[in-house]
Amino acid sequence: MTTGPFPRIGLFAKLEGKDICETLNALIKFLENRKQHAILFEAKTAALMDISNKDLIFPKKLLGHYCDLAIVVGGDGSILNAGRAVVDHKTPILGINCGHLGFMADLGPDQIHSHLGQILDGVYVEDERCLLHVKIKREGKTVFTNKALNDVVLYNGNTARLMEFEIFINDQFVMHQRSDGIITTTPTGSTAYALSAGGPIVYPTVDAFTIVSLYPHTLTNRPIVIKDTSLIRFVLPNNKNIPHKMACDGQRHIALLPNDEIYIKKHINTLRIIHPKGHNHFALLRNKLGWSTYVNNRSDHVQY
Amino acid sequence: MTTGPFPRIGLFAKLEGKDICETLNALIKFLENRKQHAILFEAKTAALMDISNKDLIFPKKLLGHYCDLAIVVGGDGSILNAGRAVVDHKTPILGINCGHLGFMADLGPDQIHSHLGQILDGVYVEDERCLLHVKIKREGKTVFTNKALNDVVLYNGNTARLMEFEIFINDQFVMHQRSDGIITTTPTGSTAYALSAGGPIVYPTVDAFTIVSLYPHTLTNRPIVIKDTSLIRFVLPNNKNIPHKMACDGQRHIALLPNDEIYIKKHINTLRIIHPKGHNHFALLRNKLGWSTYVNNRSDHVQY
Amino acid sequence: MTTGPFPRIGLFAKLEGKDICETLNALIKFLENRKQHAILFEAKTAALMDISNKDLIFPKKLLGHYCDLAIVVGGDGSILNAGRAVVDHKTPILGINCGHLGFMADLGPDQIHSHLGQILDGVYVEDERCLLHVKIKREGKTVFTNKALNDVVLYNGNTARLMEFEIFINDQFVMHQRSDGIITTTPTGSTAYALSAGGPIVYPTVDAFTIVSLYPHTLTNRPIVIKDTSLIRFVLPNNKNIPHKMACDGQRHIALLPNDEIYIKKHINTLRIIHPKGHNHFALLRNKLGWSTYVNNRSDHVQY
Amino acid sequence: MTTGPFPRIGLFAKLEGKDICETLNALIKFLENRKQHAILFEAKTAALMDISNKDLIFPKKLLGHYCDLAIVVGGDGSILNAGRAVVDHKTPILGINCGHLGFMADLGPDQIHSHLGQILDGVYVEDERCLLHVKIKREGKTVFTNKALNDVVLYNGNTARLMEFEIFINDQFVMHQRSDGIITTTPTGSTAYALSAGGPIVYPTVDAFTIVSLYPHTLTNRPIVIKDTSLIRFVLPNNKNIPHKMACDGQRHIALLPNDEIYIKKHINTLRIIHPKGHNHFALLRNKLGWSTYVNNRSDHVQY
Repeated sequence: MTTGPFPRIGLFAKLEGKDICETLNALIKFLENRKQHAILFEAKTAALMDISNKDLIFPKKLLGHYCDLAIVVGGDGSILNAGRAVVDHKTPILGINCGHLGFMADLGPDQIHSHLGQILDGVYVEDERCLLHVKIKREGKTVFTNKALNDVVLYNGNTARLMEFEIFINDQFVMHQRSDGIITTTPTGSTAYALSAGGPIVYPTVDAFTIVSLYPHTLTNRPIVIKDTSLIRFVLPNNKNIPHKMACDGQRHIALLPNDEIYIKKHINTLRIIHPKGHNHFALLRNKLGWSTYVNNRSDHVQY
Repeated sequence: MTTGPFPRIGLFAKLEGKDICETLNALIKFLENRKQHAILFEAKTAALMDISNKDLIFPKKLLGHYCDLAIVVGGDGSILNAGRAVVDHKTPILGINCGHLGFMADLGPDQIHSHLGQILDGVYVEDERCLLHVKIKREGKTVFTNKALNDVVLYNGNTARLMEFEIFINDQFVMHQRSDGIITTTPTGSTAYALSAGGPIVYPTVDAFTIVSLYPHTLTNRPIVIKDTSLIRFVLPNNKNIPHKMACDGQRHIALLPNDEIYIKKHINTLRIIHPKGHNHFALLRNKLGWSTYVNNRSDHVQY
Repeated sequence: MTTGPFPRIGLFAKLEGKDICETLNALIKFLENRKQHAILFEAKTAALMDISNKDLIFPKKLLGHYCDLAIVVGGDGSILNAGRAVVDHKTPILGINCGHLGFMADLGPDQIHSHLGQILDGVYVEDERCLLHVKIKREGKTVFTNKALNDVVLYNGNTARLMEFEIFINDQFVMHQRSDGIITTTPTGSTAYALSAGGPIVYPTVDAFTIVSLYPHTLTNRPIVIKDTSLIRFVLPNNKNIPHKMACDGQRHIALLPNDEIYIKKHINTLRIIHPKGHNHFALLRNKLGWSTYVNNRSDHVQY
Repeated sequence: MTTGPFPRIGLFAKLEGKDICETLNALIKFLENRKQHAILFEAKTAALMDISNKDLIFPKKLLGHYCDLAIVVGGDGSILNAGRAVVDHKTPILGINCGHLGFMADLGPDQIHSHLGQILDGVYVEDERCLLHVKIKREGKTVFTNKALNDVVLYNGNTARLMEFEIFINDQFVMHQRSDGIITTTPTGSTAYALSAGGPIVYPTVDAFTIVSLYPHTLTNRPIVIKDTSLIRFVLPNNKNIPHKMACDGQRHIALLPNDEIYIKKHINTLRIIHPKGHNHFALLRNKLGWSTYVNNRSDHVQY
């Protein structure tokens, strides 16, 4: 019996939401029926499913080391989470979307039976996504590092909103900015918060980051797309009144201090995302964002 | 027998499009069955329907004088056309939409039987829409005047696109502009070309015009909303190389000459538009433009 | 001796900033030399200047009642503050700009001697600005009211940023929105926060409010301009996890509760702003915002 | 005597404009004084300068083959022109800006004496810029090819403006579009027409193209950044009423026919642009576009 490319499959699930367990159960039954995969569980996912066999349970950060494929049941938020956990193990990831958008998790729960077998047999397309590596330097010392698959956002945690800082790229001065904050995004994150903020859509495999300001206090600001080999540095002013904060993938909000320097560069490893054969990112953009589609047609009369 | 508010009804139709005659026939039959309306025809509409009784046929510009309600079968373009023709007769207008968008023509062909009777019995809401009055002054003389229900667009008729001109409002200098052109729009036109060009949506009854530049050659331009009592003046430069043009409602393209002055102000009369009871402009914006609506939901998985 | 239109002048000053006292002193000396004005002081301004004669000192909310003209030394923030305090006394206001922008405070400290005399002699232009009146209804009771000369902003006080609410205008449903928040702005506020957020510039005397969403989670949102006779209502969801907040003129941040209804309409009184003769709002837009101006010219070579 | 890296220098000049000859003369004198360069002339530039020695004169397309450096006196338009002519000879190019913007021609006429010597001695930085290669296929045959350093624009040559077409990238369907036209731009062109049309600023060395629609008839369109290895294909409809046109670098306007297919990909060679040492593209963006700079400061009072 050949086992295909993924003998050991690790499962990550979103921990809230009504259809998660149902979808997880359907997925597990489907995998068991194939009789060629070991099924391993991220610890909280195991708890959610009442799995007690300790041999099958791994902490989030380690599961990627022990499996050949991570399947994530949830939305894009869950993929962001699991992606950061598995990227350094070079484990590919596949998402089953139970959430709102599903840019990365592009298989629906109802497509498990029709499409997953083929993927597990090795018929799929793979995407490589870069991540951001972020580092905070304070009084000359690195006090924090993190990864982000979507974006790093600096903002004012206070209600007053305005913040002020300087930007350098590869040690060249770029600008002094007054704004509500600033987003540094990967191509993956270009369809997330940066898009609301006026950034362009960047195709996932473009070797570039985009910097988008949040409500800059000048009419002349525009988003800028830079090479992904750039070293970005934000320098905060010596101002104690503004509670600057930083969020990575919108999920961790770190307090920054006056004079902090935030360094952002490309993370050393890339994340492998598995899609069904025939995957078309432009179709995703049309389906998920309504990108460039038309709502109006003559049958759309308002009903009185 | 009471005849209601509209004893004489004038019909205007779009002259092309597959469903026009069918809808016109249905409409005429419906009106005849009510046995209380004289049905009059705009000349080309009469030709389209093979109407030969000359007593019932009027030129476009006069029909408004002889009828109590103009019903337009077509799209917003047809309403623009008919609206300019009837506005000075103060005849109200009602649209039956056979076109793409249908912002002003908001009754569908399939709603003739269900909704038109009530309207003709006097149960409706009425909207008053302002128009633009445009005048071209050349060497001190008025050489052209026109009306526009949507917008007046100045642009470069050449392929090079760039044009240069000055803007004055109430004789105050506003700006010297280099751009592809400029739109002056009524609230009615704010959901037409000006919206594509970055202008705001203006509720139909706001007493204001909006000026939106077409691809201005500066990062600091923004649309401006001004009172509808303003007198706008565009002054063209003394430059023979640029074939400046002007379009009113996108339907007439007039050649302008160097040093021409284009004056725009509010037209003296307003157009009365009839809507079914319960009409809600915000519902139109949602239905017709997809304004602020969401396309994504969890059942929208891409089909492979 | 004639005293002109402003026998009693009330002074409001910004309480921080290095040039405030110097400008105030120059202003007071100038007014004393004219020998025709009583000079009154807002309480904190009096403290700043060590004025001890109690007959000349009034609380902020009352000074407007006892003077014929309020002169504000500071920036637009100070005008916002003083404007809300004097509007219901119908006292006109004149600003001397010591701040950053100076849209409303359009006289410079160096223009006191050259321009102020003429204004105080009665040669000036006057602008009427509308304000917003905001009311919070909670469980059927009005728990808060306020005024705003610029804008009312609803936002998520938490770091997660997303908020969700419904908008009604004149009791018509407008939209269900997911966004970072929403701005309702007067024409005066259209060049403040709303402009950063993509709203149009609205000429001060247009009878309209503009509603601009903050980073809406849909690609189809656009700013909307509505009549200033509209009653706007925002309805918050029954969600305790989101610390909704509201700011009026960016200066007061009120916590909102689940199910709160926020009503916004035009305030009953308008604010009278005094400008020097020859005032031109378009010149202000060009000077203060760089609106539609060009930075580049051939002498601008980068210096190496 | 060493001659440095550029023994033979070819001169290209803009053919109109008042300071061109003056700057050319200063440049030639400067080069002659260095006594180590042969000075060659593009044919029309030679005519402009009354150069009659035929050994020194070459047609535009060949000069690049015979020189080691092309110096262009003019604006960015002249660089676009000369750049397309020399790119396939792999000759580097240096611009002396006598025009408006000067993004690529970043040395001023007054900097010839202070900076040019160092550059010619070999102290400079070099930029590699990609170009677009465009091909029109008609009834299966290639009927036109061209290069563009900035952008390729498809548009409606008629006054009606609307056009309709389909876009494919790497043979994947991207969208059906109704708009005024569409721009495909290199990073170099991202600060030209595409910027007016809402595209992002793309750093010159990013390996990407940007596609920006001109006034699309949907609210959901956004610019998209794609890899520069992409093959873009536009397919025109079978509609004879619309005089579609195509412009390369805004300088050649080709008529397109119904059913034409326009293919755009990266040109095989890249253009080498020479800058003074210390060149900083971000400084250019700030100086030339006013990017992210502030116009307002307290001394900017309007003068009455």
